[in-house]
Amino acid sequence: MSKKVKVGINGFGTIGKRIAMAINKQNDMSVSGIIKKRPDYNAYYAVEKGFKIYAVSEKEAEAFQKAGIEVRGTLVDLIKESDIIIDATPGGIGETYRPLYSELDINVIYQGGERASVAEGSFNALCNYDESMGKKTLRVVSCNTTGLLRSICALKDLAEIKKVDAVLIRRGADPPEIKKGPINAITINPPTIPSHHAHDVKTVLPWVNISTAAVVVPTTLMHVHHVTIRFKHNIKKNEIIEILNAYPRIIMVDSKSTKIESTAQLMDAARLGREKGDINELVIFEDSITIEKNELQFFQAVHQESIVIPENIDAIRASLKLAQKLESIKETDRTLGLTKRLY
Amino acid sequence: MSKKVKVGINGFGTIGKRIAMAINKQNDMSVSGIIKKRPDYNAYYAVEKGFKIYAVSEKEAEAFQKAGIEVRGTLVDLIKESDIIIDATPGGIGETYRPLYSELDINVIYQGGERASVAEGSFNALCNYDESMGKKTLRVVSCNTTGLLRSICALKDLAEIKKVDAVLIRRGADPPEIKKGPINAITINPPTIPSHHAHDVKTVLPWVNISTAAVVVPTTLMHVHHVTIRFKHNIKKNEIIEILNAYPRIIMVDSKSTKIESTAQLMDAARLGREKGDINELVIFEDSITIEKNELQFFQAVHQESIVIPENIDAIRASLKLAQKLESIKETDRTLGLTKRLY
Repeated sequence: MSKKVKVGINGFGTIGKRIAMAINKQNDMSVSGIIKKRPDYNAYYAVEKGFKIYAVSEKEAEAFQKAGIEVRGTLVDLIKESDIIIDATPGGIGETYRPLYSELDINVIYQGGERASVAEGSFNALCNYDESMGKKTLRVVSCNTTGLLRSICALKDLAEIKKVDAVLIRRGADPPEIKKGPINAITINPPTIPSHHAHDVKTVLPWVNISTAAVVVPTTLMHVHHVTIRFKHNIKKNEIIEILNAYPRIIMVDSKSTKIESTAQLMDAARLGREKGDINELVIFEDSITIEKNELQFFQAVHQESIVIPENIDAIRASLKLAQKLESIKETDRTLGLTKRLY
Repeated sequence: MSKKVKVGINGFGTIGKRIAMAINKQNDMSVSGIIKKRPDYNAYYAVEKGFKIYAVSEKEAEAFQKAGIEVRGTLVDLIKESDIIIDATPGGIGETYRPLYSELDINVIYQGGERASVAEGSFNALCNYDESMGKKTLRVVSCNTTGLLRSICALKDLAEIKKVDAVLIRRGADPPEIKKGPINAITINPPTIPSHHAHDVKTVLPWVNISTAAVVVPTTLMHVHHVTIRFKHNIKKNEIIEILNAYPRIIMVDSKSTKIESTAQLMDAARLGREKGDINELVIFEDSITIEKNELQFFQAVHQESIVIPENIDAIRASLKLAQKLESIKETDRTLGLTKRLY
């Protein structure tokens, strides 16, 4: 087997820790180390799992030493030990590290919380892997944008798309975020239309005519999207279902037989068949698929903590030219157990 | 002044108690009595406010006597004491009283939780008051349908409407409902498209081409709708804003200046200027009004506890032919303080 590429992960929160565990399952890459900002339960988990811990700088290292956690060096040291960095820092923070990454001439995969201009290109494996091959820096678009791109790219070859309209019902916070809200409100966020998601979809698919409108609601589990796609030609329901069933990283859920009608039941079902209960796939509620001539409507759900994990693995391969598109997607899906079944 | 018509109210929950208080403010009607199913804080409030309490039957009366609450008679007695009955019983229960109402030949206003077939016609004051004049039984459509009808009827004269599409983000429960959910989920409800709301809008406006899709979320304050209206001709933003500003029972909220971007802030603002903090109007978020050629998009919010209250007052007048449409609407809005300002 060829030598594994070494991936340093800056940030070990919701996304970073999941990427680290996903890399552990790959044959062509390994985790060189992870950066934690400060010691907490995720840091102890990292130690438990055998990841080498680096601190952002000497200053941050002290707190780890006090907590009894061995620190192997600084971010600069980790970059020097790595072939590529996954920046999984909080939204907007990745940008602040860009001068350093650039100075040390390292490939970087940023997350969707950064502005598109942070990287050479925005990335979604199924939509633009080929165009992303060899780019030194990539940005895996956000969870909501990833969800929209999966359904758009799955359906774009069926008939030319005239317009996509989506209403995003976003989760208020991730499960561990105790300081975010709302507790009891529906927030129009942003109060103007379109939301930034439409623009973000275009960073990957510049040709698509899309509008998005978004609210935030008091739940932590998943986002839900109501998607309307108007095609140039009339379409048939069985064609749509066939394509979505065959497409990678999309799971169709039939509410009638499973009685899964909510994000809570989806997450509960995933705990039966999925490690840690994550759903890396986009979930489409099959019974909601409704067609009127050239217009398709449906509901989909996005597990914000994990939908971008397979995309990050593929982004590493694309940036470092480790594999071709379908080869990478197939290997990622095999190793992560994305079997198109929840349980 | 002419003699006041006597209105009996069957049900004194979220809607019934508000209708009773609203009738107290009218010059042409008074509450003959209210039916409570069982004694609770709403029953004590009714006593406090001087409403005469009736029990459904002799059997239910006992519990009131034990609770020290005087019962004036049964539902049959109340019907005989009244010129019209407001049925504000829980959804689906009104239908079970229909044979009795019919037997005693009383006019009845049902609520939107009943099937459309319960009454001679479905009612919204601004959309079909004239067609409802003199009908013995009317059904005031539900809160969500009332919200949709207000914006559709406000805008229908601007240009011919080709299609209305709405995504309804519904509150999970009313504030006092401690046994309903979801607590932490987005429920696709119903899991199929269209939801019943599209059909319900057509009970008042049979000509409208409408599709609705709905989810339920963990909040108690208000519903939020994302509405798309495609007209046959191109439209202009200033025309839309002008019409909505001039239309009764619609309040425009400018998020930029007020910082009101959520249902929580709306309800908090209403507590400044509105008795009991109710918002009887449909609220439209002005900054969300977005136009592309012939297509209009915006967000609106519906206070489910109170939006139908003015409609019930007008429905009484329409059924009993007490007043013409604009006369009734103007009087209802004056007495309820619907000044097009929240505070």
